[in-house]
Amino acid sequence: MMTLAEVRAFLDREFPQIAANARYTVEEVLPRGARLRAAYHESQIRPGGTISGPTMMALADLSLYVTVLAAIGPVALAVTTNLNINFLRRPAPRDLISESRLLKLGNRLAVGEVTIFSEGEEEPVAHVTGTYSLPPR
Amino acid sequence: MMTLAEVRAFLDREFPQIAANARYTVEEVLPRGARLRAAYHESQIRPGGTISGPTMMALADLSLYVTVLAAIGPVALAVTTNLNINFLRRPAPRDLISESRLLKLGNRLAVGEVTIFSEGEEEPVAHVTGTYSLPPR
Amino acid sequence: MMTLAEVRAFLDREFPQIAANARYTVEEVLPRGARLRAAYHESQIRPGGTISGPTMMALADLSLYVTVLAAIGPVALAVTTNLNINFLRRPAPRDLISESRLLKLGNRLAVGEVTIFSEGEEEPVAHVTGTYSLPPR
Amino acid sequence: MMTLAEVRAFLDREFPQIAANARYTVEEVLPRGARLRAAYHESQIRPGGTISGPTMMALADLSLYVTVLAAIGPVALAVTTNLNINFLRRPAPRDLISESRLLKLGNRLAVGEVTIFSEGEEEPVAHVTGTYSLPPR
Repeated sequence: MMTLAEVRAFLDREFPQIAANARYTVEEVLPRGARLRAAYHESQIRPGGTISGPTMMALADLSLYVTVLAAIGPVALAVTTNLNINFLRRPAPRDLISESRLLKLGNRLAVGEVTIFSEGEEEPVAHVTGTYSLPPR
Repeated sequence: MMTLAEVRAFLDREFPQIAANARYTVEEVLPRGARLRAAYHESQIRPGGTISGPTMMALADLSLYVTVLAAIGPVALAVTTNLNINFLRRPAPRDLISESRLLKLGNRLAVGEVTIFSEGEEEPVAHVTGTYSLPPR
Repeated sequence: MMTLAEVRAFLDREFPQIAANARYTVEEVLPRGARLRAAYHESQIRPGGTISGPTMMALADLSLYVTVLAAIGPVALAVTTNLNINFLRRPAPRDLISESRLLKLGNRLAVGEVTIFSEGEEEPVAHVTGTYSLPPR
Repeated sequence: MMTLAEVRAFLDREFPQIAANARYTVEEVLPRGARLRAAYHESQIRPGGTISGPTMMALADLSLYVTVLAAIGPVALAVTTNLNINFLRRPAPRDLISESRLLKLGNRLAVGEVTIFSEGEEEPVAHVTGTYSLPPR
């Protein structure tokens, strides 16, 4: 399993675009899970003062990618094959927190789920499941 | 039904952030469908030279939103409640084209599907279904 | 909230076909969740000795329906609008147990998730999210 | 590619439970698609005179399975990994017709979509996408 520092270093090296916009932070890596933060920025705002759906979809995809990466190591790339998102409540104009966990880590596929919260709120704003195709190990 | 010019004017007015980055263009509006283009930009690139998943998710969400909007008119906001995306092939570093159509336009919910292509290719790179909660009309 | 006895009586009355085949049992009703059992029967078996996908889909749909019903009461019918299932492992030829919980209970839509296990196993065999359109209350 | 007669013979041999209840018929096999029929039976009826969701889910899963099978041949088993269904309209108490097609046929995964109709109706009652894990060929 990769440590938090190893995951951060890998993302900085392999996804410089993500690092460049400084929006997403991996806050914790667990044996089969992760917690990330998406910093609030007014460019994400949509009519009604809420945060855009694509902002949440991007956070969910990165969260699951990090969760899979931490579990299988930095050997090669996992590819998203399916992502299903349910938007539950309009997020407040604040940071988003994602909590992800693996439901399955197979030889060829990994499946996980992500719950996204507005920081400081108990009820989730979105729930996501995703599937990743794994390279031969 | 809204015309192409009306849809474009509505988006420019209500979603200035989208207009500002000049990435997405609504190319055609049909009775129950739409075609959009997402201009290629190197910030969307991921390892292996492919376009990021969130770029395709954002295009799909906007495509379905435009399709619903054109069908119900600019009265009020439709809200995405569910989006399911299957990533089919790695897109080339080129513009993406989306073709969307409504599967259902009910009183409370609209459901549609989107197929996304790399410009000039026949095989789709992603397929999306989405559900939108409609305001009382 | 409905009690376990009230939920069972409602299902027996409204869904006599389900009661007739005696396959599904509601075992527990929680404030925002439920646990059901699908009795093993050899007609569900598929090549390789595993239980069919539709058996798990039917269990998930009933589980979410019961969970919504217990939360909103027996006033009227909730209708499934979306169901997304990830098959995680081949279930053993044994009873299936479902554990469901609500992610959102809104005025118009309820969203929930279900995890399905082979009895006695720790790793889930399937994970489901579903959306239900609620009648005006 | 398998012919209609070959597909039917394969299903009769490998899925005797399906053949036994005589509910599903494969009506046509196309290069990357199929059309199936689910015969109406009163055991499928739910309150309000509509056909149950699991009946449609089972039809969709079998339709995609047949579509994959016809394309890769009867060598070994494809396994459903994800199925997403949107219920669009309440089906009438009549036969259901499914029309499926492949969106992708890769080395490891096949993805397809299914549209389900009440016989004689133009508007679909359900739309499904599904992913199948393919055995090494």
